[in-house]
Amino acid sequence: MKVILDTDPGIDDALAFILLKAMPEVSLQAITTTHGNTTVEKCTTNALKLVELLGMTDIPVAMGATEPLVKTLSVAEETHGDTGLGHAVLPHPTTKIVEVNAANLIIDIVNANPGEITILCIGPVTNLALALLKDPTLRKKIKNVVSMAGTIHYPGNATPSSEYNVFCDPESFDILLRSGIDLTIVPLDVTYQCLFTKAHIERLAGAREDIRNFIDRSTAFYMEFHAEYQGIEGCAINDPLAAAILVKPDLVKMRDYYVDIELRGEFTAAKISADHFNASGKTANAKVAMEVDVDAFMDFFIERVKTI
Amino acid sequence: MKVILDTDPGIDDALAFILLKAMPEVSLQAITTTHGNTTVEKCTTNALKLVELLGMTDIPVAMGATEPLVKTLSVAEETHGDTGLGHAVLPHPTTKIVEVNAANLIIDIVNANPGEITILCIGPVTNLALALLKDPTLRKKIKNVVSMAGTIHYPGNATPSSEYNVFCDPESFDILLRSGIDLTIVPLDVTYQCLFTKAHIERLAGAREDIRNFIDRSTAFYMEFHAEYQGIEGCAINDPLAAAILVKPDLVKMRDYYVDIELRGEFTAAKISADHFNASGKTANAKVAMEVDVDAFMDFFIERVKTI
Amino acid sequence: MKVILDTDPGIDDALAFILLKAMPEVSLQAITTTHGNTTVEKCTTNALKLVELLGMTDIPVAMGATEPLVKTLSVAEETHGDTGLGHAVLPHPTTKIVEVNAANLIIDIVNANPGEITILCIGPVTNLALALLKDPTLRKKIKNVVSMAGTIHYPGNATPSSEYNVFCDPESFDILLRSGIDLTIVPLDVTYQCLFTKAHIERLAGAREDIRNFIDRSTAFYMEFHAEYQGIEGCAINDPLAAAILVKPDLVKMRDYYVDIELRGEFTAAKISADHFNASGKTANAKVAMEVDVDAFMDFFIERVKTI
Amino acid sequence: MKVILDTDPGIDDALAFILLKAMPEVSLQAITTTHGNTTVEKCTTNALKLVELLGMTDIPVAMGATEPLVKTLSVAEETHGDTGLGHAVLPHPTTKIVEVNAANLIIDIVNANPGEITILCIGPVTNLALALLKDPTLRKKIKNVVSMAGTIHYPGNATPSSEYNVFCDPESFDILLRSGIDLTIVPLDVTYQCLFTKAHIERLAGAREDIRNFIDRSTAFYMEFHAEYQGIEGCAINDPLAAAILVKPDLVKMRDYYVDIELRGEFTAAKISADHFNASGKTANAKVAMEVDVDAFMDFFIERVKTI
Repeated sequence: MKVILDTDPGIDDALAFILLKAMPEVSLQAITTTHGNTTVEKCTTNALKLVELLGMTDIPVAMGATEPLVKTLSVAEETHGDTGLGHAVLPHPTTKIVEVNAANLIIDIVNANPGEITILCIGPVTNLALALLKDPTLRKKIKNVVSMAGTIHYPGNATPSSEYNVFCDPESFDILLRSGIDLTIVPLDVTYQCLFTKAHIERLAGAREDIRNFIDRSTAFYMEFHAEYQGIEGCAINDPLAAAILVKPDLVKMRDYYVDIELRGEFTAAKISADHFNASGKTANAKVAMEVDVDAFMDFFIERVKTI
Repeated sequence: MKVILDTDPGIDDALAFILLKAMPEVSLQAITTTHGNTTVEKCTTNALKLVELLGMTDIPVAMGATEPLVKTLSVAEETHGDTGLGHAVLPHPTTKIVEVNAANLIIDIVNANPGEITILCIGPVTNLALALLKDPTLRKKIKNVVSMAGTIHYPGNATPSSEYNVFCDPESFDILLRSGIDLTIVPLDVTYQCLFTKAHIERLAGAREDIRNFIDRSTAFYMEFHAEYQGIEGCAINDPLAAAILVKPDLVKMRDYYVDIELRGEFTAAKISADHFNASGKTANAKVAMEVDVDAFMDFFIERVKTI
Repeated sequence: MKVILDTDPGIDDALAFILLKAMPEVSLQAITTTHGNTTVEKCTTNALKLVELLGMTDIPVAMGATEPLVKTLSVAEETHGDTGLGHAVLPHPTTKIVEVNAANLIIDIVNANPGEITILCIGPVTNLALALLKDPTLRKKIKNVVSMAGTIHYPGNATPSSEYNVFCDPESFDILLRSGIDLTIVPLDVTYQCLFTKAHIERLAGAREDIRNFIDRSTAFYMEFHAEYQGIEGCAINDPLAAAILVKPDLVKMRDYYVDIELRGEFTAAKISADHFNASGKTANAKVAMEVDVDAFMDFFIERVKTI
Repeated sequence: MKVILDTDPGIDDALAFILLKAMPEVSLQAITTTHGNTTVEKCTTNALKLVELLGMTDIPVAMGATEPLVKTLSVAEETHGDTGLGHAVLPHPTTKIVEVNAANLIIDIVNANPGEITILCIGPVTNLALALLKDPTLRKKIKNVVSMAGTIHYPGNATPSSEYNVFCDPESFDILLRSGIDLTIVPLDVTYQCLFTKAHIERLAGAREDIRNFIDRSTAFYMEFHAEYQGIEGCAINDPLAAAILVKPDLVKMRDYYVDIELRGEFTAAKISADHFNASGKTANAKVAMEVDVDAFMDFFIERVKTI
């Protein structure tokens, strides 16, 4: 399975990197970075740190969008810390990014592998939107997109109605929704069921020391955020769930939905809206993960991490 | 407890009339009608039919708003049938409405009973909004409002994001939200848990024959709608739950929320949005029923109806 | 010609009062007040002061809407001064308002004179909207409405796109636009051509002393505003032009337009938009004054004022 | 003066090509095409036909955006005909486009000539927006942008409030407005004063036969459109005016304005709004041509065309 990871690391992105390292079923073709949890510059540095930690420096890392298509830039340092990786400290990377823009790299890889590339988006989808705008033929050449994005019924984590990735660049997500690409959405409705706690860190005993330490230090910050701002014990590890279903789709139950995104609302801007009763009669444009087997996912995550 | 019932009967409104008849704790001061489930003219006729069926002709019935404040008129004949009462047939009423507009009657009763009046709104709140616009002093004189309205997490029954009462007149609901009046919202999140089925009708054996017949014939139509449009067995009897909590508030669990209503969105217009994590830091402006003891409510409804 | 004056005095409203006193062709049935240039309470006091100044205390004055239908209240004290009448000082009035709400008085008068009443609106049209909401039959009973409102091409005086009366209550103006009532709009496109200057005050020599003084002192403030905020010499006397065309319609050239009002825009909220090339193919819903004979209007105003 | 022409030919675009050929003061670096008056494919073919007609095949032509950033594609075949060039017929071109996307070519040329490039945009500005999104450093490297776009007071030619170029891709124009680049806007307020008529074609006697023929046949269609849809005699040659002011800025009078674009309105979407009275206090972000010396421009156009 050939996958491009489009990401804004970010603590839960980092956990997805770790899980992807432990998923030999996936052949990572490239890592493309975007603004989102922090600036694209910091996200890119974090991506390079992570490929060094995980011995994945053979995978090209390309820097992408500095800002959203239309909105002004958002960052979430209260959630992910100044560096974007919480309390974790990794060595400054010596690996370099490739000299091609993320959108161009996506275009090149998809054109070289038509019908074979899965794009796993765990940040705002600006790079993918720019790639689609520049090369509309991609719509028919991308195998599928799996996107950690949005919330259907669960409260938003960016505004009362909207999830952070979609909130950061709603116009790009709209382009994805209307693209006709086979799209799987992993929303907060399932990711906020998967709360990672200190007890899970205990269960990582036996995993590689530096990786366990990284998980411990990065999620410690993330848990402090969840406790202070949302009154939640543990932290929602949104992104690794999106990675996990690449190889283990039965972790979630999907529902076919026609999904719209609100670009104009005052209080509900960037809310994605699923036509639950199909009142519109429109054909579904996304498969949305609406239920998750929490224990099975946590077991999967912990077992896989121990294999690194 | 002095209550004004503001209503657009409507099948589930009719069930609320019946339940109110069986709630001696409540002293109904007036019934005011509005557009909503059907036109205000048909709703008014239905209100008169119901007070005759229930022997409540001593309670004044006043006709109210023909249309919403700003939007154009909506009616829901696919849900409630041509007459608004499904397959039920009641005699044409001989009782007359009082010669005062609903908004004016609300103003008069509240001014005559400052601090004592509960307004139970089970339709679009146009009458209440007009009363507040005409007499701003009402804000401090109304004891409280209980409104069957909106949906927080549950899918909408008017659009994917919005509930029918709020959808019909969002600007009026906005006026209510900003009024500062003690407000309880009973949203679809709880009412769609309370599905009334044929089995419940069986349990009404022993109730007054004509009332049981009315419930049977009106809800039969309503169940057909739920089956065809929403794939739901049984029918959501939204309005009686709002009536029931007047005297039995422990049927539901409330949550204090700061609630906004979207007046500008394209796909999410008329969605109410609750600040679940209190990200805005604003003071709550509503108590919202978020959980319901379904069996206790159904028992309450059935037992009370048998007392008539 | 039977006319109800709906007004928020306001300096230019005051000039309209004076002109109406000098227009024996018009039989004023009532003066109804609204929020707008200042609060409805101050506007009502000003209306009473003006009827006393002009010897019009036989005309009933009714107080109306405290606030707009949906928006929050705006006032314009930088334009009209703390009292609403600039530097002019008039005795505190002893005349009382009638004990009926403005919307109700409009309803009563129109129903008593079906097909005969012209409503001259020179403030936000909240009272008229409330009357139409409460008694939809008014649409067919009002003879016509002349409204000083909006701007088609000229820059707005409330925002870059919107005129103050419409800005204060756009939803009410929308109700008027969709009412089907014969509607004449007098927008800034013509009123901002009619700049009243010190030279015009000179020409009022010979008019009643107290009236000339009032005009001098009130417009002095208004001219200061126009100079400071808009770089305009003189002041735009918007409202008297709307009054003048009641009896002298050839002061302006009308154009039939289909007019919409923007209720949702971010920068253009409350802009009225005229379909100049009739791209929509919709039937005109308003006659809009697009050209004015400035000298003829100024002559008319000055000559009439001298007749008092 | 080094200029990139970004264009969607289109009849009036074609006239701008012709005028640019006759402006030796301008050194055209590239022609980039976009969707707009018709599809980008047809616009590109038209651009190639025009460089062949005018002997400009040494200038690279790059194809650009297939569609707007966020909106769906609009085309205007009722205005420009099936081919985009009205009744004019030119040979099918043998010249090829360069193998680089328009946005990338803009990035390359600007980076190679920092501070020296003027971009003359006479279509929707999607290419420029994509270039700015991909390489934010361009903002400081582009010398200036001259854009035929929008309308301030004049009625729109796409909707009652919006001009066609901006209507086609409002989000891209918003990116340009917020970019901080030195921006000159040439709106309909001036271009619709410059009506090109049969009399002007007469005055082209003596110009190169094939060019005069092309102008005659292309504008014939355009005049039919203006007559039928707008009741205007002659045709508004919007784009050549934007080209002309590159070398003869005194043809117009500019006004410094803070300009916003409405992205959310219902009736006013894509309207640009100029803060005429500077009520916002914001610094101007555009120089807007508000007056034009029509005769001087027509003389300039005709004289220059005769020099080819």
